[in-house]
Amino acid sequence: MTTSSTRRTLLRGTAAGAALAAGTLTNTAAALSVHDGPPAPPRLGGRPAEAGGPGGRGRKRTGPRIGVLLYDGYSLLDPTGPAEVLSRLPGAEVTMVAERRGPVRTDTGDVRVMAERSLAETDRLDVLVVPGGGNRGTVGAINNPVLLEWIRRTHRRTRWTTSVCTGSLVLAAAGLLKGRRATTYWASAPYLESAFGVTYVAERYVRSGRIITAAGVSAGLDMSLYLASLISGEETAMALQLAMEYDPQPPFESGNAAEAEPWLKERALRLVEESGT
Amino acid sequence: MTTSSTRRTLLRGTAAGAALAAGTLTNTAAALSVHDGPPAPPRLGGRPAEAGGPGGRGRKRTGPRIGVLLYDGYSLLDPTGPAEVLSRLPGAEVTMVAERRGPVRTDTGDVRVMAERSLAETDRLDVLVVPGGGNRGTVGAINNPVLLEWIRRTHRRTRWTTSVCTGSLVLAAAGLLKGRRATTYWASAPYLESAFGVTYVAERYVRSGRIITAAGVSAGLDMSLYLASLISGEETAMALQLAMEYDPQPPFESGNAAEAEPWLKERALRLVEESGT
Repeated sequence: MTTSSTRRTLLRGTAAGAALAAGTLTNTAAALSVHDGPPAPPRLGGRPAEAGGPGGRGRKRTGPRIGVLLYDGYSLLDPTGPAEVLSRLPGAEVTMVAERRGPVRTDTGDVRVMAERSLAETDRLDVLVVPGGGNRGTVGAINNPVLLEWIRRTHRRTRWTTSVCTGSLVLAAAGLLKGRRATTYWASAPYLESAFGVTYVAERYVRSGRIITAAGVSAGLDMSLYLASLISGEETAMALQLAMEYDPQPPFESGNAAEAEPWLKERALRLVEESGT
Repeated sequence: MTTSSTRRTLLRGTAAGAALAAGTLTNTAAALSVHDGPPAPPRLGGRPAEAGGPGGRGRKRTGPRIGVLLYDGYSLLDPTGPAEVLSRLPGAEVTMVAERRGPVRTDTGDVRVMAERSLAETDRLDVLVVPGGGNRGTVGAINNPVLLEWIRRTHRRTRWTTSVCTGSLVLAAAGLLKGRRATTYWASAPYLESAFGVTYVAERYVRSGRIITAAGVSAGLDMSLYLASLISGEETAMALQLAMEYDPQPPFESGNAAEAEPWLKERALRLVEESGT
């Protein structure tokens, strides 16, 4: 098995016929060969359209500039789910941003994702994604005036400002959700309403003008595919859903808090709390 | 709004009644207060049961040691989906491992996740998760003898060896899947069968002995919740699914390759290829 033969066949199995029928296999092979060069060295803080992100890309980024906020104590899937989806939008660049460049750890303390740019280095975004976190992370974020001011300032020029899970509490703390309809993590809904005067809507994602909030953790996947359809059209979003083979089949039917028994809710919150740093 | 009052109420809204009914609210508040200390500084390479991971935790890790492999060009959701789920298993520690410590970039080059430990520093795992990637990343992995030998050696002592997406090609290249039933990314199924003599099964996840393979990208979430039930029981896994509010509602019905039209498959593969480094 040689590398070149592998490259030709690896992801081409079931689609080869389709590619031939569409007469695109040659183009596809050419597109693949573009990716054969050695990886570019990581480059921090470059301008998206020039540097092509931390790892570089074989082409320029002419699409939307997408910033995903990180702060100590975020929940891992909140930023990485949307980043997986949105980083494949044509021409898009996703940049992880935080108060300071460098690794930012999750709520459980197990994982650290690199912030490639600081807030001060991030002056313009087409899309902002604000993740949620556990108690410590969310409380830290909604009490961080630097973070909230940056969110307010950035939101003035975004095309879409979005949140996942308790990230909607952070948007609310920044003053962006007052009097709006929004969703959040199921256990945070009463707090969102009582503390910020927001009308909670128990949906996977809720659009209010150019603000889109998603429900807990995994809902960021559904939200970002919807967002993808707003940015690049439904056919591209449908292709993105297939690209990530998103045909979910959860092993249980326990993911909807509205149908969960009290003991299960308590067990769920305990798992979150006891796994937190 | 004070931090302490926020801590008490933030994730306690809908579950407060349940907690009171269960007489656990006091205990819960106590558990919460454990999390009020300042975050521990990142610690690399500590022994799981002692160091409590890169970010540390307020308690010892006495549960399963879970290693998630990273290599240049992995797809972001492949390792982070399972890490989100498995890091909340009671007492568990999830460690991102790679050939060398430090940031490892995704297939699109947008994001870098930190490898907290090198392969040489990782001698014993209860659970191994091998992610997939784009062409470049997967080809690099299945042609990396150091990586494959480490996987073979680690697998001898794991309780569960798992993969997501094209990660099953990496397990197959390591010789772990010969003659077995397994799944993989939809477009890689013919390659998995022809190159490695594996019987492809078009399911979200497939268990063969102590090896569990998941389908493309997002299937790692379904697989890891199933794995959670094998490790910690169904009630804990059900609670984990609620903890991540995993009640998926994709905006489209395009995630199943078996039902996708050729043009959509070609569009999906093109998005993957053209977003790759």
